[in-house]
Amino acid sequence: MKLFSADTYIKRRTQLKQAMGSGQILFSGNQDSPMNYTDNTFRFRQDSSFLYYFGLNLPGLSALIDLESGEEIIFGNEYSIDDIIWIGQQETLKSLANKVGISILKPTNELAQNLRKENLHYLPQYRHDNQIILSEIFGISPKELKASEKLIHAVIAQRSYKTEEELVEMTKAVNATGAMHVAAMKACKPGKMEYEVVAKIMETVHNFNAELAYPVIFSVNGQTLHNHYHGNIMNAGQLALNDSGCETEMGYAGDITRTFPVSGTFTPKQKEIYETVLQMETDSIARLAPGVYYKDIHLSSNRILLENFKTLGLVRGNVDDMLTEGVGGLFMPHGLGHMIGLDVHDMEGLGENFVGYNADVQRSTQLGLKSLRLAKKLEAGNVLTVEPGCYFIPELIAKYKTEGIFKEFLNYSKLEEYLNFGGIRIEDNIHVTENGPQILGSPIPKTIAEVEDTMKG
Amino acid sequence: MKLFSADTYIKRRTQLKQAMGSGQILFSGNQDSPMNYTDNTFRFRQDSSFLYYFGLNLPGLSALIDLESGEEIIFGNEYSIDDIIWIGQQETLKSLANKVGISILKPTNELAQNLRKENLHYLPQYRHDNQIILSEIFGISPKELKASEKLIHAVIAQRSYKTEEELVEMTKAVNATGAMHVAAMKACKPGKMEYEVVAKIMETVHNFNAELAYPVIFSVNGQTLHNHYHGNIMNAGQLALNDSGCETEMGYAGDITRTFPVSGTFTPKQKEIYETVLQMETDSIARLAPGVYYKDIHLSSNRILLENFKTLGLVRGNVDDMLTEGVGGLFMPHGLGHMIGLDVHDMEGLGENFVGYNADVQRSTQLGLKSLRLAKKLEAGNVLTVEPGCYFIPELIAKYKTEGIFKEFLNYSKLEEYLNFGGIRIEDNIHVTENGPQILGSPIPKTIAEVEDTMKG
Repeated sequence: MKLFSADTYIKRRTQLKQAMGSGQILFSGNQDSPMNYTDNTFRFRQDSSFLYYFGLNLPGLSALIDLESGEEIIFGNEYSIDDIIWIGQQETLKSLANKVGISILKPTNELAQNLRKENLHYLPQYRHDNQIILSEIFGISPKELKASEKLIHAVIAQRSYKTEEELVEMTKAVNATGAMHVAAMKACKPGKMEYEVVAKIMETVHNFNAELAYPVIFSVNGQTLHNHYHGNIMNAGQLALNDSGCETEMGYAGDITRTFPVSGTFTPKQKEIYETVLQMETDSIARLAPGVYYKDIHLSSNRILLENFKTLGLVRGNVDDMLTEGVGGLFMPHGLGHMIGLDVHDMEGLGENFVGYNADVQRSTQLGLKSLRLAKKLEAGNVLTVEPGCYFIPELIAKYKTEGIFKEFLNYSKLEEYLNFGGIRIEDNIHVTENGPQILGSPIPKTIAEVEDTMKG
Repeated sequence: MKLFSADTYIKRRTQLKQAMGSGQILFSGNQDSPMNYTDNTFRFRQDSSFLYYFGLNLPGLSALIDLESGEEIIFGNEYSIDDIIWIGQQETLKSLANKVGISILKPTNELAQNLRKENLHYLPQYRHDNQIILSEIFGISPKELKASEKLIHAVIAQRSYKTEEELVEMTKAVNATGAMHVAAMKACKPGKMEYEVVAKIMETVHNFNAELAYPVIFSVNGQTLHNHYHGNIMNAGQLALNDSGCETEMGYAGDITRTFPVSGTFTPKQKEIYETVLQMETDSIARLAPGVYYKDIHLSSNRILLENFKTLGLVRGNVDDMLTEGVGGLFMPHGLGHMIGLDVHDMEGLGENFVGYNADVQRSTQLGLKSLRLAKKLEAGNVLTVEPGCYFIPELIAKYKTEGIFKEFLNYSKLEEYLNFGGIRIEDNIHVTENGPQILGSPIPKTIAEVEDTMKG
């Protein structure tokens, strides 16, 4: 099991204890998730906050920090000889716990008796098995479980700032992700099926002894934002959108999107839109700096889209008015990006609004902006995605036309020339520093020339 | 979505209704399973019994058969325009329901009001989210949920017999699985890492637009029965054991094991053990027939192992005595096989003892035999795995030696020559018929000559 040094975990817990002051802090590690029956499970994925404070990447653990007694305890059961037959000789839990600076190991069935009901803090429980475990311990129904906002804020206040050793892992994740994207570009040929490209992506991620950070989005229907259907044939003239990322052994995610022409060569019409999205991306990255609201960068990327679309004749009128009204949401109905780290949408399980919003900035209700996961002021140490996109969604365009939405701004007849265009998204992962934005990892083909060269090679 | 004809599902439900007679039958379809937060999910896997009776491979559905009113209802929510942005234009649920012969579609939130508390039958709930949903509806705790044994038996009485159209799907699964195994053999070379072979297996299964039926077991430590660690370098002289299988779009599983020498050529010592396991497999397959207890085939394969091991000097004494005492469990601490179908261990979620045992045959407590999942009399239409193995598990041999277990039968000094041997398992999927066993799919290299030829090619 790959771990940081014990000092790293001790330091993280010390900081947490200082922030919390008193009471008990319980971290539920994840269990194995049943697929089609109890013993046929999905790959094990540890909870990210558990990984952050306790490192151990094994199912069935929980951990308790008692701020009164000062004790830190991991609860879990050692393997028996029967387990060894099925899963092989393993390092003892006791030894592993020592490696993350924990000296007290107790069996799982002693958890309940170690919990006090008052001033007990735990995080939101997104796993239903853990909901049941905790609700049984507390004698309440699962929906009565109440996560601690104080703990949520304390955890976010730590996990939002990536350390050097985390950046090393995240760079590894992005580099493996880059290889997945290059493999996809090289595998893409007219007449092939989408899933044949997905197969190459899967081979590549496993060649790094890694897993997917999220289900692969790969499609010639890039206008569908989360498209996990891979059964289409790919034809010359179409664009293919690949949004896929690697998760390293330690749990850190990469999240990259590239869009490329199935034929290997962009058409002039595709180039126009691609250059717009690329300009949105590079301009947004250049703006990343401590003190800047990410919401403002989302809006400035929207401005680029609308100005370019005005030039192309797809929209008309005053760009400031269009920004105020949220016209850009038709073309980019998602947010510009999100934090990334141990989760691809980092800390989303703790509550998206706690992570991306605060008293300074309210969540919008406009299409596009309402899906912005990160809006607040950036700080040095944040790592986030910048992922502008542009999509022509036939159903949405039809709805707007029928209902006359934004009819003063939209050139419907021109828009109808794009109904089979698909969608483009370009995404990188960036570390915000006092000395300017740092794109993680080695460059992944992104300009039109780079993409076309890669597909030729 | 690939479906059988509506008639198939109607016929299956009709048979079930006849078996149940009265009351209501509730089938919980599966939900998306959260990985590291609610919206980052593992791939969706529908419940197999839901697939069997209702076909629809979508999350968030449930289905109710009301034997009093005669109504059959699917509960689920149609997509909104917001969904279309994220997941694309989809066929309506209403239309899909019609394709499986269901005309009544109701929104999810109407499920509770359609349930009566008396004479309501449902299957065991292995998914914790569904446990919570049902326990909230019934106002009880999750552990108070009580599956209907009558329904369990009725479902097993249907799913245990595979129809022609199911056999076509299962043959597809085995053929894709065969390709995965050939790819692994060809990718295996001394000096490579295990995960590089796993990468080829992943590429191959996705090239069929399919998924894994269970996590890949691939290891040079084949003596570890469920080894999902793939971080070892592979060296000449070692054996590699590959137990992996494809699940088709419709949910049917293949489950095949092959063992091969990393170098491409078996050593004489490896050949001796390999030929024993192969003899166990082919002999067991030849014995498959309606009316035969599968437990007896497990024992006859054990006899072959012990007789051959006696010749090799690994054991001594009377083979009948060794069989009675369960000495073979040291070398094969698992059962000979299990049913296969929509689940790789078919219907295991309904209860292994209901599927594989009945009043005729008791579960043993001996190592090996106690893990036999299927013991009862075979019937035409059953499809099952035959997967004998032979393993030298250092920890287990050490334990037996220290504790003097079976010391009258075991030649410990000879056994110690095998401590680094690893393990061998050979597995096929077989349809039991009145006219003899039918191995599903095209032949997958299995004899020493076939395996060596494949690795050379």
